[in-house]
Amino acid sequence: MTGDDFFQPVSGFDLPRFAGIPTFMRLPHVGIADDRAADVDIGLIGVPWDGGTTNRAGARHGPRQLRDLSTMIRQVHPHTGVNPFRLARCADLGDAPVNPADVQDALARITGFYDQVMDLGITPLSAGGDHLVSLPILRALARQGPLGMVQFDAHTDLFDGYFGGFRYTHGTPFRRAIEEELLDPERVIQVGIRGTMYDGEDIAWGEAQGVRIIMIEELMERGVEHVMDEVRERVGREPTYVTFDIDGIDPAFAPGTGTPEIGGFTSFQAQRMIRKLSGLNLVGADLVEVSPPFDPSGGTAWLGASLLFELLCVLATAREAAA
Amino acid sequence: MTGDDFFQPVSGFDLPRFAGIPTFMRLPHVGIADDRAADVDIGLIGVPWDGGTTNRAGARHGPRQLRDLSTMIRQVHPHTGVNPFRLARCADLGDAPVNPADVQDALARITGFYDQVMDLGITPLSAGGDHLVSLPILRALARQGPLGMVQFDAHTDLFDGYFGGFRYTHGTPFRRAIEEELLDPERVIQVGIRGTMYDGEDIAWGEAQGVRIIMIEELMERGVEHVMDEVRERVGREPTYVTFDIDGIDPAFAPGTGTPEIGGFTSFQAQRMIRKLSGLNLVGADLVEVSPPFDPSGGTAWLGASLLFELLCVLATAREAAA
Amino acid sequence: MTGDDFFQPVSGFDLPRFAGIPTFMRLPHVGIADDRAADVDIGLIGVPWDGGTTNRAGARHGPRQLRDLSTMIRQVHPHTGVNPFRLARCADLGDAPVNPADVQDALARITGFYDQVMDLGITPLSAGGDHLVSLPILRALARQGPLGMVQFDAHTDLFDGYFGGFRYTHGTPFRRAIEEELLDPERVIQVGIRGTMYDGEDIAWGEAQGVRIIMIEELMERGVEHVMDEVRERVGREPTYVTFDIDGIDPAFAPGTGTPEIGGFTSFQAQRMIRKLSGLNLVGADLVEVSPPFDPSGGTAWLGASLLFELLCVLATAREAAA
Amino acid sequence: MTGDDFFQPVSGFDLPRFAGIPTFMRLPHVGIADDRAADVDIGLIGVPWDGGTTNRAGARHGPRQLRDLSTMIRQVHPHTGVNPFRLARCADLGDAPVNPADVQDALARITGFYDQVMDLGITPLSAGGDHLVSLPILRALARQGPLGMVQFDAHTDLFDGYFGGFRYTHGTPFRRAIEEELLDPERVIQVGIRGTMYDGEDIAWGEAQGVRIIMIEELMERGVEHVMDEVRERVGREPTYVTFDIDGIDPAFAPGTGTPEIGGFTSFQAQRMIRKLSGLNLVGADLVEVSPPFDPSGGTAWLGASLLFELLCVLATAREAAA
Amino acid sequence: MTGDDFFQPVSGFDLPRFAGIPTFMRLPHVGIADDRAADVDIGLIGVPWDGGTTNRAGARHGPRQLRDLSTMIRQVHPHTGVNPFRLARCADLGDAPVNPADVQDALARITGFYDQVMDLGITPLSAGGDHLVSLPILRALARQGPLGMVQFDAHTDLFDGYFGGFRYTHGTPFRRAIEEELLDPERVIQVGIRGTMYDGEDIAWGEAQGVRIIMIEELMERGVEHVMDEVRERVGREPTYVTFDIDGIDPAFAPGTGTPEIGGFTSFQAQRMIRKLSGLNLVGADLVEVSPPFDPSGGTAWLGASLLFELLCVLATAREAAA
Amino acid sequence: MTGDDFFQPVSGFDLPRFAGIPTFMRLPHVGIADDRAADVDIGLIGVPWDGGTTNRAGARHGPRQLRDLSTMIRQVHPHTGVNPFRLARCADLGDAPVNPADVQDALARITGFYDQVMDLGITPLSAGGDHLVSLPILRALARQGPLGMVQFDAHTDLFDGYFGGFRYTHGTPFRRAIEEELLDPERVIQVGIRGTMYDGEDIAWGEAQGVRIIMIEELMERGVEHVMDEVRERVGREPTYVTFDIDGIDPAFAPGTGTPEIGGFTSFQAQRMIRKLSGLNLVGADLVEVSPPFDPSGGTAWLGASLLFELLCVLATAREAAA
Repeated sequence: MTGDDFFQPVSGFDLPRFAGIPTFMRLPHVGIADDRAADVDIGLIGVPWDGGTTNRAGARHGPRQLRDLSTMIRQVHPHTGVNPFRLARCADLGDAPVNPADVQDALARITGFYDQVMDLGITPLSAGGDHLVSLPILRALARQGPLGMVQFDAHTDLFDGYFGGFRYTHGTPFRRAIEEELLDPERVIQVGIRGTMYDGEDIAWGEAQGVRIIMIEELMERGVEHVMDEVRERVGREPTYVTFDIDGIDPAFAPGTGTPEIGGFTSFQAQRMIRKLSGLNLVGADLVEVSPPFDPSGGTAWLGASLLFELLCVLATAREAAA
Repeated sequence: MTGDDFFQPVSGFDLPRFAGIPTFMRLPHVGIADDRAADVDIGLIGVPWDGGTTNRAGARHGPRQLRDLSTMIRQVHPHTGVNPFRLARCADLGDAPVNPADVQDALARITGFYDQVMDLGITPLSAGGDHLVSLPILRALARQGPLGMVQFDAHTDLFDGYFGGFRYTHGTPFRRAIEEELLDPERVIQVGIRGTMYDGEDIAWGEAQGVRIIMIEELMERGVEHVMDEVRERVGREPTYVTFDIDGIDPAFAPGTGTPEIGGFTSFQAQRMIRKLSGLNLVGADLVEVSPPFDPSGGTAWLGASLLFELLCVLATAREAAA
Repeated sequence: MTGDDFFQPVSGFDLPRFAGIPTFMRLPHVGIADDRAADVDIGLIGVPWDGGTTNRAGARHGPRQLRDLSTMIRQVHPHTGVNPFRLARCADLGDAPVNPADVQDALARITGFYDQVMDLGITPLSAGGDHLVSLPILRALARQGPLGMVQFDAHTDLFDGYFGGFRYTHGTPFRRAIEEELLDPERVIQVGIRGTMYDGEDIAWGEAQGVRIIMIEELMERGVEHVMDEVRERVGREPTYVTFDIDGIDPAFAPGTGTPEIGGFTSFQAQRMIRKLSGLNLVGADLVEVSPPFDPSGGTAWLGASLLFELLCVLATAREAAA
Repeated sequence: MTGDDFFQPVSGFDLPRFAGIPTFMRLPHVGIADDRAADVDIGLIGVPWDGGTTNRAGARHGPRQLRDLSTMIRQVHPHTGVNPFRLARCADLGDAPVNPADVQDALARITGFYDQVMDLGITPLSAGGDHLVSLPILRALARQGPLGMVQFDAHTDLFDGYFGGFRYTHGTPFRRAIEEELLDPERVIQVGIRGTMYDGEDIAWGEAQGVRIIMIEELMERGVEHVMDEVRERVGREPTYVTFDIDGIDPAFAPGTGTPEIGGFTSFQAQRMIRKLSGLNLVGADLVEVSPPFDPSGGTAWLGASLLFELLCVLATAREAAA
Repeated sequence: MTGDDFFQPVSGFDLPRFAGIPTFMRLPHVGIADDRAADVDIGLIGVPWDGGTTNRAGARHGPRQLRDLSTMIRQVHPHTGVNPFRLARCADLGDAPVNPADVQDALARITGFYDQVMDLGITPLSAGGDHLVSLPILRALARQGPLGMVQFDAHTDLFDGYFGGFRYTHGTPFRRAIEEELLDPERVIQVGIRGTMYDGEDIAWGEAQGVRIIMIEELMERGVEHVMDEVRERVGREPTYVTFDIDGIDPAFAPGTGTPEIGGFTSFQAQRMIRKLSGLNLVGADLVEVSPPFDPSGGTAWLGASLLFELLCVLATAREAAA
Repeated sequence: MTGDDFFQPVSGFDLPRFAGIPTFMRLPHVGIADDRAADVDIGLIGVPWDGGTTNRAGARHGPRQLRDLSTMIRQVHPHTGVNPFRLARCADLGDAPVNPADVQDALARITGFYDQVMDLGITPLSAGGDHLVSLPILRALARQGPLGMVQFDAHTDLFDGYFGGFRYTHGTPFRRAIEEELLDPERVIQVGIRGTMYDGEDIAWGEAQGVRIIMIEELMERGVEHVMDEVRERVGREPTYVTFDIDGIDPAFAPGTGTPEIGGFTSFQAQRMIRKLSGLNLVGADLVEVSPPFDPSGGTAWLGASLLFELLCVLATAREAAA
């Protein structure tokens, strides 16, 4: 329980939500080199980069719109009563450095930033960017060995390559992560997979590695409670990462994304699934693929910001439990 | 059963829906001072005012867009077979007078208008405007004592004050209404509450007064049928008001509102809940917080207009039962 | 099983989805007079015409936006594993000729085109256009006698006339089709009907002919599995047409249509219902009323394109079974 | 000079502009059969019909959006000081009856309505609708012989037929009007013509009849003052109609129209040209082709409403001069 | 000439423009109570408040969208070569405190903030908010006596009251400012006035006080150079404030505002007029009425941000000259 | 003069403009490997790639939206009377192959495609894509030595590198092209340059090479006629390329682009400038930076398509002159 007022968000009772320079959830902005960075428990970080996008770009603008909409977040979780800002010292660490002109350089810069985050002992909660940004984050986080991962998504992102063997796109991060032993495939579980397939090779490869893939039909039939019990069991008590691709949610709720797939789960189901992660040994999380040009209304970003709050609550709980 | 052709809406079989000056549901416009006002049973009224909005304004434009879209409403309810225009003489009474430049003056003007409505014995069905408009309406309607109220909403609107003690905002109307004894808190029930909380003081205060607050999780688990049985039992046979904040519905269905909260109920659930109000002793209803600037497509207003029709059906049924 | 590479769609692994001239699902464009037309099993056809629209026009632009979005479709069905492009030789036959300046001439041109399609033995999968386009299509398809029909829709489209007896609008096609004995009313079943009614005459007439009309409330209560069992039983093993009006789906999912009705089924339910048509004796299908001006974002067209793929899978399965 | 308060618009000082049921310029709604219709000098009329549109439909929704935006019009012209509501008794006569399902029936209904307008001695100021609506209006107005006409437009609308001889579209009204001797071609002048041409036959035909066609290049080079001097001279003192197609203005200013052409004149130039019509013997005017689906923001309708006010000022001046 | 790197904006060569927490022009955020505030020469300040708006609200969201778009501003003026960030130490001072629930309290809070700005000797460049925000700013700035003012605007904002005598709206600030002797009317000049008028009382009053009002027609005829010579002469060498209402510019360029008027000046003309202010004794400036809900694309905010840069250049030049 | 009907566009008199699969200007699609490719004089080519974009991506979607809107182009130029489809055999060659996942590979693929175009003797008229696509095109076109170039643009695109030396972005193509001796800098002239500058190094470098840079102020003061005389003189009779960045035009006319700069020239001025290129020895042209996500309305693409037609006319004239 933190009593440090510096790390408390500005209340909408004091300053209207539309006022002020928009940081994530109206938290203080603490640069990675600032003195106060050493005090931060959980850092909210933007990764404004979509250089891995094979289809419709725009997720580079995600962090800014997410920050904007996140100023409508208040302090306390309505269902669990958790106040993450009291459980942990949270701050907006700004954006990771990126390079829209070169994929490999961008990946290196991002990993470099997260290395600093790890050195400071900060749990990162990241906002993409396209899904390839999870790879350089995992490269920094998996220092002590492969992680488990819970992935909410419409796509496996387990492809091998595009356009004649290009291996670094937003459709390939977790194949790379498994190859690089950043993830333990037996502890990777994907929820919500759907959409027309190229040939199914991604699924076949993933399952051969031991990845558990839960298609949307299975999710709908078993229900989120049942499926999340399996998720919890599979990742167990070992360190686990959470990655939430906004396209896991049905495009009626999340139109602002580059590769939507119809027939997804609802935002209410998303909330319930994230809440069921409480108590796991979570070492970080990200929310990716919010693409403002495809939803200038900000509705998708508001959904994303609301899910970042849900993720923050389970991360803060995990952080406190580990303390 | 009314046979007065004057009060029948123009049919889409005769005049295309996009034609004609848009009144609510293509009803005749009857000014409050017109001779025919004395014949009106149910008056549809706009309250184009959002001076109580602490966040994103725009609900002042609600009545106009609701009128526009409401011209797509036909005459007969598809499920119950009710034709409200045959059960009661309905008319568009125009807009209540407002003042965007002064909160207290606006409240006084609105109450003044509804006093006239009450003098004429008209049951009002109102379209906001932000949720603060319910307060001046209740001031006119609760002449004979505190009313019961069914509230569909994401927020309790039971806060005490904002920005250092300012007590008249769209987050405070029902605290004021209970304090002013316009509502009987034991007969107030709120359905669909959710979203991040400031500190929960609003809920604590409301429950201490006896207000029944049904969070979204409870609604989803028990189902709308079960919850509505409780609603009916709580408000009983005494006079009851219905207030429907469009943000009660999930923002995928109702993006055009100032303070959306993800994870809400669907429009189908909304329809079913309103239908379950049939048979109650209803003395008026409103639908608020449709904010056109946040949904220029009109989809939210179409949803709102469709719910106004659902509300009209239960009001007309109540009116006929009382006759 | 076809091995003809000419008829294979371009893969997103080879050419990015946003590249190339947009044909339906990136299939080859084969004109009705081209030599290769004789080889086509299933033809995707646009009918860019909305001259039957009584309310908000725009469906004339549907085929183009559907083609655009359909380039995001891949090859294999994620749930059934069907690859329709291997089961049947599919092609984009372009658009049927139309005339926005004259209703009867337009109907004649469309039927003329489908007569050619029938002469070539091609199974048509059509994209409207407003719902009146189903009538001239049925005139060509019902050569051998009345067809059965499964209709997903918010409206019966069984009205007699508008504006004083005008009998050819998008609200009347199936009354005309039954009168012209293109459809066997005992084998016509409508799913998802809802929305305010004029007077119910359409339903009464339809039911008197033997049409089975399943209102949305019945669908929601019985569930899609149960309802689809009845659908299958009713149409039986005889030749059957499928017509999918996008407004059957809830407007949160499909805002881009001219006459939306709230409280509809979800896109996931739509997918499951179409899949349950597998094994029927299907002779053609259409998807109508996607209206781009009311959803420039393309979300509705993406939903429509995804449902065209679902329809293509059941048509290809039927075609193969018949071969 | 009229002192009749009944015909004064509601002031924005009294009622906010966004409040109230939207009539044209907040004038009283006077039905053509109302007693007060006989007192009206100038009638604002909507013609919500676009059945002549060969390209992108939507102008059927023009009158409603124009009414909505026109509530931001005040009373006095800023440059000339004219208050048209004091010069003439103005009223909103509602919409002419239309039929979206049949072209010839629609034309007949519109002419029938304008016959009544003429019988009452009312000068009509009409809001389309597509440009074909000018034809049935002219059929009623040219009772006493062919009229002169000033046309602001990007297109001549002098074509003979489309799609194989269909002669009634929004590209043909003035060829029909000249053939029917509703217009005197020697007193017809078109300003702003541009855009790629089919083959120039329309221009050749028009010029052969004596129509004066001023292309945009000539307008830009000579300047609006100079060109308008020629306009005034050509139409002279005889009865003259004014038709303003919003696509005459550059699409940066007027994107909401079906057939935009780049490189047009500005809204400021439009204002100045209309003002130069003052003193002519004007018998009516229309503004057409505002298509809300292509500009939901309402900016084009606001431009259109502002030009309707400019037209109203010159009509009121002409009306007073004739009195 | 400042060499203080702390006050240099982040370059788009180093960090992509879409990255980073958005401050005005990527300047450092310096709170009014921060130690470094004493070093600031020019402070960019947001005033997110539109409580004075009588028509369409939304300008409360202006500062945030202006900050967002202003991150596309680079360092050097292309025409004059001025680098304002080298001439003066510039910083983003955040937003002034506001209260959307009470007009008088909001005005007091804003003046209180600007009193601090003045105490620190900072020249304020403000971003509204609606035009009423200029009044509380002037209350702080006119400490030493009435100021001159150059106003670019479509409206005089010299009205006396609305809705029956309410005197504090965005249509009245400069009448109040003249009454309160914050402005010297002989040194107030308004450029671009147009739009339909209520009755001209505002202009008559202003001119009676000595205010010089240049209507748009005069501006267009004389040209911006000529008019600006008069502007410079009128305000002379005494302290002068600049207020730029974005609705001065034609709505084709600036659609995102609450009360647009067609026929305005272009953005190029706006740039040239501001540049002609160079060398005047400028003590502050504001840009108001950018209303994001009416232009979610951000085009109007980008125009506004670009004009803020133009204003910054002339303020920095004035500040340096005064140093 | 070509009489080959195969190469004639489909007329809007025969098929409505919204019908049919959209190729550029409704021309036949001729693959680069098709037999008929050898007959093509001028090839319209899409380059759907924006991998060089440092700011807001989206131009990858340009070719598709340009094709869509270009179906509204007719056959004959309204001012010059040129029918380019009669002067030259024109065809849509489809899209050049691209790779969104790798910059250098993409550049190589594009040059490879244009090498084939050159081998066939086809004059290319290309639609981007971001401005970096001009570089690989020039690599193929400048086979016989450096070309002259007329560039309409807000930016010089003469920068050296971004983000620490990355040399291939849409801000650097012409520096690379001059370094690679694809362009003769003495015959390169840039028109319309404006917008805030980093430090002016790009201009200094360009002028040092001999590039003539005409800032917007000079263009506005001298007028387009005068400036274009200089352009014609500078490039002379030697082979010359034309590149038109849509952001050269003011964002009121062309909002759909990634890096808009206010205060640009109008679309009418753009048309006149292109027409003044008639008679030059033109070997190809491109139009780039149309970014659909920033203008879903298609207005910018319509402007772009209209300018492609203007460019086609001068290319066809040049081609015929050379024949």
